[in-house]
This record gives sequence, C-alpha cells and structure tokens, in this order.
Amino acid sequence: MLKLSKLLGTSLRGFSSQAGMPIAKKYFEADGTLRKKVFAPYTIYKGKASLSVEPRLPTFSKLNSGALKVERKGSIMLTFLPAVGERKYDWEKKQMFALSATEVGTLLNLGPSDSCEFFHDPSMLQSNAGEVRKTLSVKALGDGSGYFMSLSVVNNAHKTNDRLTVPVTGAEFSVMRTAFNFALPHIMGWDQYTNLQQTNTSELPSGNVAQFAKSEWER
Amino acid sequence: MLKLSKLLGTSLRGFSSQAGMPIAKKYFEADGTLRKKVFAPYTIYKGKASLSVEPRLPTFSKLNSGALKVERKGSIMLTFLPAVGERKYDWEKKQMFALSATEVGTLLNLGPSDSCEFFHDPSMLQSNAGEVRKTLSVKALGDGSGYFMSLSVVNNAHKTNDRLTVPVTGAEFSVMRTAFNFALPHIMGWDQYTNLQQTNTSELPSGNVAQFAKSEWER
Amino acid sequence: MLKLSKLLGTSLRGFSSQAGMPIAKKYFEADGTLRKKVFAPYTIYKGKASLSVEPRLPTFSKLNSGALKVERKGSIMLTFLPAVGERKYDWEKKQMFALSATEVGTLLNLGPSDSCEFFHDPSMLQSNAGEVRKTLSVKALGDGSGYFMSLSVVNNAHKTNDRLTVPVTGAEFSVMRTAFNFALPHIMGWDQYTNLQQTNTSELPSGNVAQFAKSEWER
Amino acid sequence: MLKLSKLLGTSLRGFSSQAGMPIAKKYFEADGTLRKKVFAPYTIYKGKASLSVEPRLPTFSKLNSGALKVERKGSIMLTFLPAVGERKYDWEKKQMFALSATEVGTLLNLGPSDSCEFFHDPSMLQSNAGEVRKTLSVKALGDGSGYFMSLSVVNNAHKTNDRLTVPVTGAEFSVMRTAFNFALPHIMGWDQYTNLQQTNTSELPSGNVAQFAKSEWER
Repeated sequence: MLKLSKLLGTSLRGFSSQAGMPIAKKYFEADGTLRKKVFAPYTIYKGKASLSVEPRLPTFSKLNSGALKVERKGSIMLTFLPAVGERKYDWEKKQMFALSATEVGTLLNLGPSDSCEFFHDPSMLQSNAGEVRKTLSVKALGDGSGYFMSLSVVNNAHKTNDRLTVPVTGAEFSVMRTAFNFALPHIMGWDQYTNLQQTNTSELPSGNVAQFAKSEWER
Repeated sequence: MLKLSKLLGTSLRGFSSQAGMPIAKKYFEADGTLRKKVFAPYTIYKGKASLSVEPRLPTFSKLNSGALKVERKGSIMLTFLPAVGERKYDWEKKQMFALSATEVGTLLNLGPSDSCEFFHDPSMLQSNAGEVRKTLSVKALGDGSGYFMSLSVVNNAHKTNDRLTVPVTGAEFSVMRTAFNFALPHIMGWDQYTNLQQTNTSELPSGNVAQFAKSEWER
Repeated sequence: MLKLSKLLGTSLRGFSSQAGMPIAKKYFEADGTLRKKVFAPYTIYKGKASLSVEPRLPTFSKLNSGALKVERKGSIMLTFLPAVGERKYDWEKKQMFALSATEVGTLLNLGPSDSCEFFHDPSMLQSNAGEVRKTLSVKALGDGSGYFMSLSVVNNAHKTNDRLTVPVTGAEFSVMRTAFNFALPHIMGWDQYTNLQQTNTSELPSGNVAQFAKSEWER
Repeated sequence: MLKLSKLLGTSLRGFSSQAGMPIAKKYFEADGTLRKKVFAPYTIYKGKASLSVEPRLPTFSKLNSGALKVERKGSIMLTFLPAVGERKYDWEKKQMFALSATEVGTLLNLGPSDSCEFFHDPSMLQSNAGEVRKTLSVKALGDGSGYFMSLSVVNNAHKTNDRLTVPVTGAEFSVMRTAFNFALPHIMGWDQYTNLQQTNTSELPSGNVAQFAKSEWER
C-alpha cells in the first residue's frame, strides 16, 4: 500500500494529463500503467454518417480536508463519423461535441415537435477563442417520428466547414433519453454522494447515531 | 479493527454533532478525523443570484438488534447566493432551504404551468419558534418555459428580510428533475434496503433458501 | 471462512423461517445472530390513519449448479395504522397489504383521474382460504389532486371488519411513484442480473472474451 | 490469487464458449466450475401462452491496453411458452426473441394506441440465412388498456409455423417499461462507465487531481 501510494505520487504528473482515468490504486497495474477504459458507446449507423454517444465522467480532486470536489464536470460525448462507403465510416474525420448537464437536460425535456441548438467554442477563454465554432442542431422531423441531429464545425484557421447529419428515429432517441437519464446523475457526480451511504454498517458503533452536519433544518 | 472501534467509541460524542458524516470506520482517517465529504452541487448562475442544489443523505442509528433505522431524514439542500458583481456571488450572504422528500415530490409532480410554495420555520418546536420564517416559492413563467424560484427569509430577531430570486429554464429544471428523481430514494434511505441484496451469494449455503420474515402474504 | 460456513450450516434451519433476512455470511454476527434489518419507511400521517410504504426484497435459493433463483417474490408493503389521538397511531391495530410487482405497475400506470382495486386472500390455497379478505382501493380525488387509499380487512373468523383510509396528495403519490419505480427492479430481483456485471475486470484474462450462453441471436 | 489466475488460464478455453458467464475470478468455484447464473424473469401467465422477460447482459473483451470493450451486446430476452393445460406451459416448445437496445427503445416509446413489429433472422449473415424468420408484433388493444404481444416463428427447414400470443395488460406493460428502463443502461454496458467511478477515494493522493483524457472541451 505504502509502496503504491509512493509510486502514484511520483508518477502522477505524467499520467494525470494524458491518462484519462481517475487516479486511484485499483486503476493502476503494478507497473504504474493505467487500466480500465470502457468502450460501450451507443452507435447508430445511417447513410451519410454515424453517431455515437457515451458518458464522460467528472474528475475529482481531493481537498486537504479529505473532501472530494468535482474538478472537471462530466459530459455526454457525441461523436459523428462521415460515411465513406456502405457501412464504412471514417474515424479520421470524426467530429465531437460534449453535452453539458444542462444541455442533456434540454434533450431530456425535448417534446416530439421541439428543436434546439447548442453552440460551443472549444477554445473559449483562450487566445485562439473564436477560431473554431461548433453548432449542434436537433430538429424534430415533420411528423414527430424523430429528429435530425447535425453537427457543424467551422474552423477559421483551417478554412474548413464540416457538417454531419444523422436522422434519429423516435426509438433511437428513446434509447438516448433512457441512457442520458441514467448517466446524468453520474456526470454531475451525484453518485459520489450516494456512495458515501454504502456504509458497512456492521462497523457503526451499536446504539450510537451517525449524524450529518447541522443543516438548515436545525437552525 | 479493535483499536479503531475504540477510537470511535471515545471520540464519538465530539464528532457526531459537528462532523456531518456517517460515523463508520472507513470515513475516519487514522488520526480520527473524518473524511470524504463530497462537493458536487448543480449550480445555475444568474444575474441577481445563483442557486445550488445537492442531496443530503439521511443518518441512521443502529439498534441493539443490529437493525438500521433512519434517525434523521435526508433532504435536497438549496443554496441561494446573491450576486455582488459580474459572475461574483457572496457566500457570506447565502440562504439555504432543505426540501423534504414530499417537497421533492411536489417539484417532480409540477406541471409546466404549475406553481407551489413551501414554508419552513428552522426553529420549529423550539423556544425561538417563529423567529425566522423561510418561504420558497416556485412559479411557472407565463410561457411555460421554466420557473422563478425565490427564497424569502424573514428574521424577526435581526429585523432582516432577504429575498433571492433565480429564473430556472426548462432545461435546468429538467436536470433538477432527473437528479432529484435519482436522489429521492437515497434521501429516503431506500438504497439501504437494496444494499442488503448485494449479497455475495457464493456464501449462500447451496440448496438452502434465504427467507424474509413471514409477511402479510403468508398469514 | 470455513468455520463460519459451518456455523451457518448448523444454525440455518432455525433462522431461515423466522429471521427475515437473506442468509449470507455478512448478515450474521459472530455468534450466529442475524443483523441489518432496515427501517426506512415512507410514512404519511393523516387525521384518521397513517400509511407507511417500504420494499420487501425477494428471497433467493441457490441451485446445485450454483445458479441463483428467486424463491419468494418481493413486494411493496403498505402498513396502515389507525389514529388514536392527535398524531398518535396504534401499532397494535395495524393492517398490512403487500403489493406484487404487477400491482406496483398498476399504481405506476395510474392516471390522475384513474382508480383501481386489489383483492388479497392471505390464506389463498390453504385450508382456511376465504377466512380473511383484504381489499385495497385507490380512488382519484375529484379534482385530480391526489387519491384516497383505503384498506378494508374482513375477518370472518374474528367477525371483524376494519377499514382504514388515508388521503394521499399528488406530491405524496409522486414520492411513492419515484420510490416504487426505484424499488420495482429490486423486488423483481433484476438487480441480481446486474450485480453479475460488477466484475472486477482486472481479473479478466487479457485478450480473452467473456461470453454468455448462446442466445437466440446465435441460433 | 496467483494460483486461481493460473487455474483460470488453463480452464478458460473450455468454459468460454459454453459457460454463458463473464469469466472472472469470483464467478468460479475453486474447482473451476462456473457459478451464479440468475433466474428472476418477470412472467405473465395467460390462457394460451406465458411470456417471460429477463435481461441478458453484454459481454466484454479486455484489450491489451487493459481497456474494456463491449464484445457482444446485451438484450432483453422474451420467452413464450404455449399452454398445455390449466396453468401448465410446455418448456420444450418455447420460442425466444432477443430485443436489442433500439427495440427496447421502441417499446419504451410506445404510446397507448401504438403498435410495432420487429423481424429477426437468427441466422443472419450465415449460410442458412432466411431459413427461420421470427416476427414479434406488439399491437395496442382497441381501448388502450394494454397490448397483444405475438411471436411468430416460421421455420422453412422444419416446415413449421408457430404463433404464440399473450395479452398484456397496461399494468403488466408498466412493469416491463420500468424494468426495461432499469435494464437498458446495463444491456448497453453503460454501468461499466459508472463502475469506474466507484473509486475508493481514500486512495486518491491528497491535493492532486484525477483527470480524464483531454476531451473535446479542451481543444
């Protein structure tokens, strides 16, 4: 244990920026490499493009008090690939869009004839802000049977303008809605509150009361 | 193990009232300090105030029989902060409101043109009852696109009257609804029933039946 | 480990019929007594009676093959207590009704102006069948703002006829709906399928595939 | 530990194709046999046939990088048995149909007066493709109170044509909807993303940040 923490301590800087995994003992092999990335996207393959969705969990920092704080928020990542032949899609030309919790809320709240649009600047607040503009548009089909989801990426530096569109049926959108509903508390980090609860209660001192901080109700 | 239980036993009184964490072995550092408080609120920042929501889990006491009983119910805590500049909010002037399970149910049940109001007296049943009155009001926007959430706190002792209002979009309310729907069984303590179930069944004696108490069905 | 299994083996017959807990190592104290029953009902207190709801998990038997089979189905237990004074309810006069999965489905499916009725004979298929008849009736309030829930118990042997009624607001019913929706997969035992999945994948042999039985898709 | 991994290594080839269980240490008895298959179907028994539904989890392969990838998608398995007497159903004549995630989405999305139909060829992409055709049809009852679910299996090789029909009440369909909603993220493998999160955070190096791979938001 001590040895591993030490290993973590020394190897941390290098891994933390590239590894893409929560840094905790069980996610390291003995040699310090990371493990357990999961690939379980929900993908729909259509004529002109495919669309994959999968959750990205938040990251946490541990405060000196021992408390756990969301450092970087989670998201639902959408990945569009253009078709380059029958049932062949070009991974090199992928375009991605990360939905925030509130954007996921917009989709969960979308009625059968509603539409919505989100704008992202991947370089927001950086020196190259405005260079790339991404627009995700979700438009109800006329008959309420589904949506068109389009991602447009304008890159002023590269002088490119990509637009990938996937028709999503009501059934496919229903899968996304159920999956997003499941994932949303996790990308918000709320599952960490409830993990707290999974106390091995056999270790609670009998007859004593486990208490939370005095809340508003007590004041 | 023995040593730690002893530590818990002696340090319990002091911690239990101020610590804000379930008292169980794994939530203590070796020196007896508590750990793993989680900060993962869902916060919306608006012009005049911000609103954060996060769950507060129930606390349990362990009966002499070994059974686990909810001691103090959980809640969804709302925290309003007034704006004191562009994207700056004053933590010192925060006002809080803890939604009970039934109040959460009211919000989950709220139609797009419905409104509701909750009244809390933080000193209910105490000598200073009536000194502070809190009112949370949730009012549908005229066009059904969201809600105004206002917290009014009248403190007769301090002669103060604060009112903080945050407009909540349909998408933001949808995030809250999904998060509250996830959290509600946890603040009720129902996840503890199901934790029971996570039996390592390899330890069930083969061919025998695990049985619950004779229920109404058997009588 | 061996010692404890042995202990379980010898003490099993006695406990299994009266204990009301899944029989597994971690639910036994060292002296063989059971532990961790949970008390976290959702209770509403009204003028003439109170109503508590809580889940009862299914029980499992372990087949010789090692497979786990639901032995006794779970339920949502409703407990009505008559009021015997202001905010005082008589536990001795309680009446209980165990909702099956399908009856829970009926409540989840209930529209704001719908009603339903369930009939139980606690002695069904036994020699004293018909002696006691229980009827749970759920009736929408005229204005769609909630329901009346009544439990009537006719006991022909004791010549008694009890009827306990609790008005349930829309908010309270919404809490029940969310809680029942959470609990239903657990009372069906479906969480046991997914527990399977919580594999410590670090122990999966690298490069090999974990496979399920040949399913219909393969035939 | 070492000993057991070795055991797994040698016995793996034989088990993996027939066993039907994720291959991981804890699902093996010491003698190398598999364990913990779960039987907890939701079954409705009707006059002419019974219908059982239960989830089939996906299988994963572990990449050399240590990452976990869905190998075979999960499903909801429907099993129809014909009645051969009062409350007797013939297991030998069972017909099965595995709903994909998107087909489950169709059912979750089905309005009270909607209908849908799915076609499966169990030998799709194999030499005997087209030999067997399965059709699942879900038709709303005229009064919106439920659905007829029929499975028709035409086997050209055996010159057989079976059709099994079960009327499903609104309450029963509501149970399925809740159970499918619970199971869908699991059959998609999305619970594996969130399992990641169940970090023993006490092992997070204090003051350091656990980070995911640079996502689209950072670019």
